[in-house]
Amino acid sequence: MTDLKEMGKRAVAAKYMLQTLSDDDKNKALTAAADGLLADAEAILGANKEDMQAGQENGMHEGLLDRLRLTMTRIEAMALGLRQVAELPDPVGKILEEWRRPNGLRLRKVSVPLGVAGIIYESRPNVTADAFALCFKAGNAVILKGGSDAIRSNMAIAASLRKSLEQNHMPQDAVQLIASTDRETTAAFMKCREYIDVLIPRGSAGLIRATVENSTIPIIETGTGNCHIFIDETANLTDAVNIVVNAKTQRIGVCNACESLVIHEKIADTFLPALKEGLARVHEVEIRGDERIRRILPDVTPALEEDYGKEYLDYVLSAVIVKNVQEAIAHINRYSTHHSEAIITQEESHARLFTRDIDSACVYVNASTRFTDGFEFGFGAEIGISTQKLHARGPMGLPQLTTYKYIVEGNGQVR
Amino acid sequence: MTDLKEMGKRAVAAKYMLQTLSDDDKNKALTAAADGLLADAEAILGANKEDMQAGQENGMHEGLLDRLRLTMTRIEAMALGLRQVAELPDPVGKILEEWRRPNGLRLRKVSVPLGVAGIIYESRPNVTADAFALCFKAGNAVILKGGSDAIRSNMAIAASLRKSLEQNHMPQDAVQLIASTDRETTAAFMKCREYIDVLIPRGSAGLIRATVENSTIPIIETGTGNCHIFIDETANLTDAVNIVVNAKTQRIGVCNACESLVIHEKIADTFLPALKEGLARVHEVEIRGDERIRRILPDVTPALEEDYGKEYLDYVLSAVIVKNVQEAIAHINRYSTHHSEAIITQEESHARLFTRDIDSACVYVNASTRFTDGFEFGFGAEIGISTQKLHARGPMGLPQLTTYKYIVEGNGQVR
Repeated sequence: MTDLKEMGKRAVAAKYMLQTLSDDDKNKALTAAADGLLADAEAILGANKEDMQAGQENGMHEGLLDRLRLTMTRIEAMALGLRQVAELPDPVGKILEEWRRPNGLRLRKVSVPLGVAGIIYESRPNVTADAFALCFKAGNAVILKGGSDAIRSNMAIAASLRKSLEQNHMPQDAVQLIASTDRETTAAFMKCREYIDVLIPRGSAGLIRATVENSTIPIIETGTGNCHIFIDETANLTDAVNIVVNAKTQRIGVCNACESLVIHEKIADTFLPALKEGLARVHEVEIRGDERIRRILPDVTPALEEDYGKEYLDYVLSAVIVKNVQEAIAHINRYSTHHSEAIITQEESHARLFTRDIDSACVYVNASTRFTDGFEFGFGAEIGISTQKLHARGPMGLPQLTTYKYIVEGNGQVR
Repeated sequence: MTDLKEMGKRAVAAKYMLQTLSDDDKNKALTAAADGLLADAEAILGANKEDMQAGQENGMHEGLLDRLRLTMTRIEAMALGLRQVAELPDPVGKILEEWRRPNGLRLRKVSVPLGVAGIIYESRPNVTADAFALCFKAGNAVILKGGSDAIRSNMAIAASLRKSLEQNHMPQDAVQLIASTDRETTAAFMKCREYIDVLIPRGSAGLIRATVENSTIPIIETGTGNCHIFIDETANLTDAVNIVVNAKTQRIGVCNACESLVIHEKIADTFLPALKEGLARVHEVEIRGDERIRRILPDVTPALEEDYGKEYLDYVLSAVIVKNVQEAIAHINRYSTHHSEAIITQEESHARLFTRDIDSACVYVNASTRFTDGFEFGFGAEIGISTQKLHARGPMGLPQLTTYKYIVEGNGQVR
């Protein structure tokens, strides 16, 4: 079993070095790490080939094999990712607030790195490089725990990153990868509060639930999105159909896809047939609805209560009819995972009510929920989408990987 | 046993009402609650008398009895506290950032309530009113879990607050107090993640540790302060002595008191005798130091390794001698609880190094660590002092009881 205590100590030693680095130092190291990945491409592709063989022997699904697969193009994309992070503004050392007290004390609230981040993730090996880049740019050391399927690829990528760091006189332990992939190690990792300041699980609902239940480290919960779109009475029909079709079908396996429709009773008769037509042009989508919906679209599957709370990640959509915007808000707040919800309306007062009262990270008016994404928001990067309310909510970019401290300067003040 | 699920559901219903309130509504309710506490003073004092009797019968310590005791003056102070919170600016509904994307989407990041807060606290009954006021002003519902010693007082205060809310057509369930004080209820409370958005433990190190280890709700860790003061080579001797005497003796039982001294070797000979004199004028203080300190002050107790990590909350101070500011920083980062640390120096470059590299919530230059406090910082209120890095760090005022959401307005945008 991996010596997590030893890894924790190394990460803490590294974090004290990293917090002293200038933006220039960090950018040089990231650029060198990008060059390093290309130089080490052969070793990384070799390791990935072994992971792929093991996956095929274990009967891994074609979709998962594709996520696991590395090619020269994908390694180039990883390297480009490192260079792009280098180009983002440094989130550390910003004076967030500054004031003076009547006793003469001068206070400054300054952004600083979180310290040591732990990331638990599943099959995609590119996360190894991406998560390192974001943590490093924000001045954090990172301990990575990838999935067993990708362990050889992850080890090869981490070894390349560490070599580049060392060659640039940077602490290698800015990135460490846990070599063991057994459950005991993962469980023990979640208890390393002494060394780790934040733990971010990225992956399946099961992984996230296990982390929430077992971690003693402060975590940022990411991911699950049962996103709703409410078609208000005054919705522009073309926009409503376009937005739902986009949010449902443009990519079905993502957390910002639409999973549930809420429809004003006065527009259901015209909207539902139009939606059916719109969806049919793109992909077959199963709608699960209540009786009133089935009266309009007879081939709709009857919805069970549990359908309204489901994140399908599939060509399925639950649908319900409501009397007004208040009822829509109550339904959504009850069933949503507080990720992203949208209202399609031309009535400004309804949009105001909806955006004020919906309790979700991102609330849209007349736009697709698919925009909940660090790049679409203009953050230039994304470490995940938070569905909890503490620290960060919604898409997390570099600033969300920092905290702050107060620097208080006086000339002898006492209480 | 208390039906925590039912309480959770009521709190969630209340939070949806609270998030729609205007600042004016909230302030009226707080003022009415202050009036209500005074009107209900007799009932509250009667309940407190029973708590005090039970405490005396159980052989409770005089210090604890004093914390438990309510008087008319203390009830007036509670009422005044509610009025002061009403006067603070509303932390909700602030536009924190606003921007437009090339595709025309308009994004606003707006402060919103956290939702439902859970507060676990120990003997002081005034926390019942204080915690309610802060949570309510920030638009949050709160579920309180007080100590068994104060249960009758807490129940009487909570009943008064709920009555005032109801009379003002506000949701009573904005404040709920858990009636059971057994361990099972507390343990179950820490798992109510479905209903509670943040859990804040306020009290002993034992309570905080238990919360960290058992809670599945995101928590904000508060309290423990092993605060250091580093006396640099160029420290002004008078300031150094004044600041250490103040930080050690002005109030010994608080988390921002100084517990540990770090002294530059070139100033130890003059500083230590001066400090001894300064302390002697105020209160006897036991110094625990290494051999080099004992060579200068022969009556110093030998320090054990564990002394350097201790929060004494007593007239005790550990002390160590170092070669330079770098060694001081390394010692402090190793042993501190990341609460508050100070450097006393006239050398600006050392102050810069210290404030950059010390990994604590509050870093002072030439001032007492005792200033780490919401009121001293000018926040007008304080719900606790965070010693973790996620969400809030250092003194927490009203803004730390909020989160944000993104409101995104478009005109039909899809991806």
